[in-house]
Amino acid sequence: MQNPSIVLYGPGSAKLEDKPVPEIVDGHDVIVRIAFVGVCGSDVHFWNHGGIGKHVDLTAGIVMGHEASGTISSIGPAVTCVSVGDRVAIEPGVPCRFCSYCRSGSYHLCKDMRFAAAPGPPDTQGTLCKYFKVAEDFVYKVGDEMSLEETVLVEPTSVAVHAVKLADVRAGETVVVMGSGTIGLLCAAVARAFGAYRIILVDILDTKLEFAKLFLGCETFKPSTTASAEENASSLRSSLNLSSTCIDTVIEASGAAASIETGINVLRPGGKYVQTGMGKPKIEFPIGMISEKELMVRGCFRYGAGDYELAVSLLTRAIINVKPLISSTTRFEEATEAWKKTARGEGIKNLIRGVDD
Amino acid sequence: MQNPSIVLYGPGSAKLEDKPVPEIVDGHDVIVRIAFVGVCGSDVHFWNHGGIGKHVDLTAGIVMGHEASGTISSIGPAVTCVSVGDRVAIEPGVPCRFCSYCRSGSYHLCKDMRFAAAPGPPDTQGTLCKYFKVAEDFVYKVGDEMSLEETVLVEPTSVAVHAVKLADVRAGETVVVMGSGTIGLLCAAVARAFGAYRIILVDILDTKLEFAKLFLGCETFKPSTTASAEENASSLRSSLNLSSTCIDTVIEASGAAASIETGINVLRPGGKYVQTGMGKPKIEFPIGMISEKELMVRGCFRYGAGDYELAVSLLTRAIINVKPLISSTTRFEEATEAWKKTARGEGIKNLIRGVDD
Amino acid sequence: MQNPSIVLYGPGSAKLEDKPVPEIVDGHDVIVRIAFVGVCGSDVHFWNHGGIGKHVDLTAGIVMGHEASGTISSIGPAVTCVSVGDRVAIEPGVPCRFCSYCRSGSYHLCKDMRFAAAPGPPDTQGTLCKYFKVAEDFVYKVGDEMSLEETVLVEPTSVAVHAVKLADVRAGETVVVMGSGTIGLLCAAVARAFGAYRIILVDILDTKLEFAKLFLGCETFKPSTTASAEENASSLRSSLNLSSTCIDTVIEASGAAASIETGINVLRPGGKYVQTGMGKPKIEFPIGMISEKELMVRGCFRYGAGDYELAVSLLTRAIINVKPLISSTTRFEEATEAWKKTARGEGIKNLIRGVDD
Amino acid sequence: MQNPSIVLYGPGSAKLEDKPVPEIVDGHDVIVRIAFVGVCGSDVHFWNHGGIGKHVDLTAGIVMGHEASGTISSIGPAVTCVSVGDRVAIEPGVPCRFCSYCRSGSYHLCKDMRFAAAPGPPDTQGTLCKYFKVAEDFVYKVGDEMSLEETVLVEPTSVAVHAVKLADVRAGETVVVMGSGTIGLLCAAVARAFGAYRIILVDILDTKLEFAKLFLGCETFKPSTTASAEENASSLRSSLNLSSTCIDTVIEASGAAASIETGINVLRPGGKYVQTGMGKPKIEFPIGMISEKELMVRGCFRYGAGDYELAVSLLTRAIINVKPLISSTTRFEEATEAWKKTARGEGIKNLIRGVDD
Repeated sequence: MQNPSIVLYGPGSAKLEDKPVPEIVDGHDVIVRIAFVGVCGSDVHFWNHGGIGKHVDLTAGIVMGHEASGTISSIGPAVTCVSVGDRVAIEPGVPCRFCSYCRSGSYHLCKDMRFAAAPGPPDTQGTLCKYFKVAEDFVYKVGDEMSLEETVLVEPTSVAVHAVKLADVRAGETVVVMGSGTIGLLCAAVARAFGAYRIILVDILDTKLEFAKLFLGCETFKPSTTASAEENASSLRSSLNLSSTCIDTVIEASGAAASIETGINVLRPGGKYVQTGMGKPKIEFPIGMISEKELMVRGCFRYGAGDYELAVSLLTRAIINVKPLISSTTRFEEATEAWKKTARGEGIKNLIRGVDD
Repeated sequence: MQNPSIVLYGPGSAKLEDKPVPEIVDGHDVIVRIAFVGVCGSDVHFWNHGGIGKHVDLTAGIVMGHEASGTISSIGPAVTCVSVGDRVAIEPGVPCRFCSYCRSGSYHLCKDMRFAAAPGPPDTQGTLCKYFKVAEDFVYKVGDEMSLEETVLVEPTSVAVHAVKLADVRAGETVVVMGSGTIGLLCAAVARAFGAYRIILVDILDTKLEFAKLFLGCETFKPSTTASAEENASSLRSSLNLSSTCIDTVIEASGAAASIETGINVLRPGGKYVQTGMGKPKIEFPIGMISEKELMVRGCFRYGAGDYELAVSLLTRAIINVKPLISSTTRFEEATEAWKKTARGEGIKNLIRGVDD
Repeated sequence: MQNPSIVLYGPGSAKLEDKPVPEIVDGHDVIVRIAFVGVCGSDVHFWNHGGIGKHVDLTAGIVMGHEASGTISSIGPAVTCVSVGDRVAIEPGVPCRFCSYCRSGSYHLCKDMRFAAAPGPPDTQGTLCKYFKVAEDFVYKVGDEMSLEETVLVEPTSVAVHAVKLADVRAGETVVVMGSGTIGLLCAAVARAFGAYRIILVDILDTKLEFAKLFLGCETFKPSTTASAEENASSLRSSLNLSSTCIDTVIEASGAAASIETGINVLRPGGKYVQTGMGKPKIEFPIGMISEKELMVRGCFRYGAGDYELAVSLLTRAIINVKPLISSTTRFEEATEAWKKTARGEGIKNLIRGVDD
Repeated sequence: MQNPSIVLYGPGSAKLEDKPVPEIVDGHDVIVRIAFVGVCGSDVHFWNHGGIGKHVDLTAGIVMGHEASGTISSIGPAVTCVSVGDRVAIEPGVPCRFCSYCRSGSYHLCKDMRFAAAPGPPDTQGTLCKYFKVAEDFVYKVGDEMSLEETVLVEPTSVAVHAVKLADVRAGETVVVMGSGTIGLLCAAVARAFGAYRIILVDILDTKLEFAKLFLGCETFKPSTTASAEENASSLRSSLNLSSTCIDTVIEASGAAASIETGINVLRPGGKYVQTGMGKPKIEFPIGMISEKELMVRGCFRYGAGDYELAVSLLTRAIINVKPLISSTTRFEEATEAWKKTARGEGIKNLIRGVDD
C-alpha cells in the first residue's frame, strides 16, 4: 500500500485502506511520516456515534486521528522551518491565513480552518495514515531527548496551555481543575508551570484522584454525586481550608453539568472560569451567580498562536513529564482496539503506532 | 420631623417616618441634603415582593432608595474633595477600604460593602430621606449646567459605564444591547461614547424600540416571542445585513432567558458578552456554543472605580442627554405612587422629589 | 509606457521610467491601477538625503510611494475579498504569514515584511507607478461616498489608529498630542473617536495650532522654545487648568527631543506615552521620571492587524473628515514638485495624481 | 529609652535617640516591635549624600529604615487582620485610601503616601526603631517556618514581584536581568516563579555572576565595559545562542546608562523592558529603537496591591530561598557600620538587629 489509512464510515465501521500519498502543492507544504497517533475522547465519540453533536455524513469516509508525531519525509521548495528527517509534533489544523482572525492572531477561530479528521472538505484527512501533509509552520521540531511517543502528548498539552492562558492564571493563584482525565491533569500541570500555588483536582473517581496525587502531588477533592453544587462547593472549601475569597480560577475539563455548576460555586468574587471539556450543548446554568460575583467565563476552543511552542518547551524541559500518562501502544492495523480500550475507560492516553515500513 | 424617611416593612408596606439625622463620625464623612431620588426596578421588586432572590427580614424596616442627587449640608474635618453647598451625585455604597478587593481596585466586590437600602447592617440606610451620610469620595460634584434631576441619572449611567467597560467595547465595534429599559438605553449610549460603530437595540415592545430610535438614532430589532434563539439570531443578522463574524459584543440588560440565549447566538467567534440584567438565578444556557465560539462571558455587578467619574463627565458634556429619560416627578410623601407607576411600566425613569424644608 | 514609475537613484535624483507590469503569481495577488499617491515626510527625507537613518544603496533605484489609492484591475484565481473595479485603499506591506509574529497577530513586526518603497528586496516597489501588485487582504474596499483622494488618507489615519490603540486611549481621558502635522492631527481625531474628553494639540507654530483648532475644535498649547521641559509642562498645565494628575496619555508625533521631554513631564503618575514621530536615534531622556511616575512608554511602528479596517470605517462614516487635510494635487510626471512643496512646509497632505491612461 | 531610634541629620551624621512610642489613633493601627531591618542601597545613598536626587532638608532628622520585620505588640480596636504576637513583614508606606489612585488599585502612586524614612511629613518615621506604627493591612503575617531575618527580605522580593508583574513575564519567556544586586537576583528568581524559561543575569563583576549561578542556576553574561551597547547586545546573543527574536523581556536593575542601552538593544521586536534600578535622572537613550522595534518600556515604582502577599507566599513556600542573600547581622547600636559595609560593596543583604529589650 502507498499510504495505509484508517477510515471511518459510520459508528463502529472503520477500514484499513490505501489512500494516495499526499503531494506537495504549496511551497510551504511538508509531508510527515507518522510515528504515533494518540486516541482522544472525540475519536471514541466518532467511533461510537459517528460524530459529535451535529450530524456528520460519513458516506465518503474520513481518515481518523489528530494527535500525532512523526518524521519529516519531504518538504516544499519554500520551506525553511524544518528539514527532512526532523522529528516533529504536528498541529493538525491549517487556517486560511487571509481572514481577520488569521491576521489578528486568532487563527484557531478561522472559519476556513481545515482540521484533521474533522467533518469538512475532502482534504481534511486525519493523521491515522502513513504520510500526512501539513504546512511547515504547523510542525514543531522536538529534540532527541523526547521520544516520539511523548511527542504525541504535545497535542493535549497544547489544549491545556490554551485553557490556562485563557484563564490568565498568574503566579500565586489557587486553581481548581474539574475533571481528572488527560486534559484535566495537563491543565493542572500547566497551571503549576505558570506559577499557580495551590492546585486542586476534582473527580468523582478515587482511582483518578489517586493518580493525580502521584502524577502532580496536588490536592484533590471528590464531590458527592448526591449533593447539590452549593453543598459540594462548600465541602471543597471547608475540607481544604479555603475561604470564600480564595479560589481565583476554575478550569472545567469534564463537561458534566453538575461539575460546571460546582465550579461556578467555588469561585471567589471576581474569579475566572474556563470551560474546556465538552458535554451537552445546553445545561442549567447559575447565571445569577455570574452577575453577583462578577465572574469571567471563557469558552476554550482547541489551541492557537504560541500554544504548541510552549507545550513543546514544557515537555522538552521536563517541566511536565508526560511519560506516566502513556498507558498503551497498539499496532496500526488494530487501531480500533485502542479506541475500544479508551471507550472502556482503560488507561489515560492510549497510542497507536504508525504503520510499519 | 428631623429626617423624614420612607421605610419599607414588607411587600406593599411602606411608612413615612422620622429618623435621626446622621452624625459625622469619621473625619471623611459628609451629609447630603437629598434633592431627588430615582425609582429603580429593584425598588419595585422590594415593594412588590419584600426582597430580591434571597429572603430579607424587613421587620426593622429599611429606608429605601439608592439613586439620588443632593447638596452637601455638612462635612467632616478631614474632607477635602467637596464643600458645603456643592451639588452632587451620590454613589450609594461605601466599602471597607482594607480588604484585598478594596486595595486592588475592585472595591465594588468588597464583602463588607455597606450599600444603601440593601439588606445588611443597620447603618445601610437608603437615600429616600432628607439627610444621607456617605464618605467624601463617594459624592461627585456636578456643574451648574446639570440639573439635580439629571444628576440622579448618574447612577444608572454608572451601571452602563461599568457594563461597557467590562465588555471592553472598542472603537469601530458592532454592539447588540438586549433589552431597552433605562439600563439598556444607557448601555447603548455609553457604547457609542466609547466609539462603537453599529449599535442594535433589541426589545419585544415596539414602543420601547421607537423610543430607542428617537433617543439614540440607533438600529433596532424586535425578536419573535415564538421563534427559537437560533431563529431570532438569524433574523437579526439577516434583517440588518450582518454576517456571522460581525457582532463583537452583546450587553444583555433584560435578564430574560430567551434574550440571553439569543444574545449568545448572535455573537461572532471570539465575541464578548456581558450580563447586566438580573432575572432567574438559573436558566438553560448554551454552554456548548460558549466553547465552540470561544466566547467571553462576564457578569457585571453594580459599578466601581472610575465609573461615577466617567458617568458625570458624559452627562456634563452632554455626550449623553438623559433629559428624555426623565418621565415624571412625584412628591416625597407620595413615593409609593412613583413605585406603583414604575411597576405598571409607565415612563422610563420616574423620580421622587426630596422632602421640602 | 507599460508601467510608468517614479524611481529614486539618490538624493535629488529621480526619474520617470517604464517598469514591467507586475504579474499575478500567487493566487491571492491583486493588481491595483493607482489613482492617487500621498507625499509623506519620509518620502521627502529620502528625496533630500537618500534614506532615513541607515545608509541605503539606491544604485538600482527604488520606485517611491507608499500612501496610495486605486482601482482593482486584475485579480488572482483564489481572490475572494475584492473584485475587478473595486475602489481601494492599499496597505503597502505584505508579511511572510509564517513566522511567530504573523501567526500571533503582529504581522507588522514580521522581519520578512516586504514594504513598499522601503530599502529591501527587489520586489518592494513603491506605489508611484501605474500598476501595483499586493495581496488581496492588503487592499480595503471603500464606498462611493469617499473620493480616491480621501482614500489616500487611510494610510496616515492607520498610523494614528495604531498609535491610539497602543496608547490604549479610553473614554473620558485627557490626551496631549505633541506635534501638529498630519499624523498629530489624525492622532487627535482618532483619540476623540475613541472617546477621549479633553484633547490638547501642542506645536511651536501658530499657524499649525490655528489649523488644529479649526479642524478639530480642540485645545492647543504653544511651548516656549527657550523654556525647559519642566517649565513648558508646567505652563501647559496651568494655562489649561489641568492638575498634575489629569493628563492620562501623551502621543508624541514630532520626534523632537524637546517635545519628547515635555511630553514625559506633563503626564500624570501611571500615565501612558506613545512615540510615533521619528527624529534622532538617540536623545537625552528623563529616565528617572519614567520610574518615579511609573509611566508606560511604547514605541509605535507603522500599522497592523485591524488598523486599516478601522481607519476606513472612521473616514467612511465621516467620524473623521480628512478633506481639509488635502492641500494640493500634482501631476504624476511632476511628482518631485510635490516632494519639494512638502519639503518647504507647504500644505498638510500633498497628493500626486496617478499617471493618465 | 522608650523607643530607641537611629536618626539621620545629614551626610555621615546619624544619632541613636529616644523617640516617643507611637500611639494608636486610628482603629486600624498596629504597633510592631521591630526584629530586623535591612540595609538598602537607598539608605547608603542617604547616609553618604543626605538624600537621593532632590535636596532633602534633614535638619529635623529622619528615622531611617524601611525594610523590616517584627512582632505585633499592640493593635487598634478595629483590627481584624492580625493579632498581638503575630510575626510580620512590614510594607512601610500607607496611602490616603481616598484618591483616585487608591480607589483604582494603584495606591502606590498615591501622592499622599506616607512612606517610611522618606522625606515628607513628620509622621513618616522609618523602621530603625523599637516600635513602629502602621495600618493593619500593611503588615503581613508569616509562618513559623520563616525566620524574622528572612522576613526582612519580603521587602526587596516585593520590589521584584512588582517589576516582574509590570513586565508581564509569561511562562516560557526568555528574560534578561541587567544588574546582579539583591533586586536583580530577586527579579530573576521571581521571573522563574512566573514560568520564565531562560533567564540571563548580566553584571560587570565576575563575583556577582558566580553568585548568581550558584543562587539560581541561571545563565550569565558579562558585558565589556569598553564595547558599545550594540556590540554587547550582539555578544550576549551570540554567546548564548539567542536569535534576534528570542529575548522577550528585559528587567533593568542597575540604573547604569550603559546597561539601559544594552538592555534596549537585546530585546526582540515587540519586547518589554522594565526599569527598576535608579541612576541618573537623565541619560542618552535609544528612542529610535523603541519605535523601530515597537518596544514597551515601563517605569517601576516600589510595590503595590498584591505584591507583598505574593512575596510572602514565594518565600514561605521556599519557591525562593533568600537565606543565601543574608550576608551579615549588625547590632542596632552599630547600624552605621551596616551602612558602611554595604557602601563598601560587602555582602548582598546586610541586616541590623532590632534593639534589645
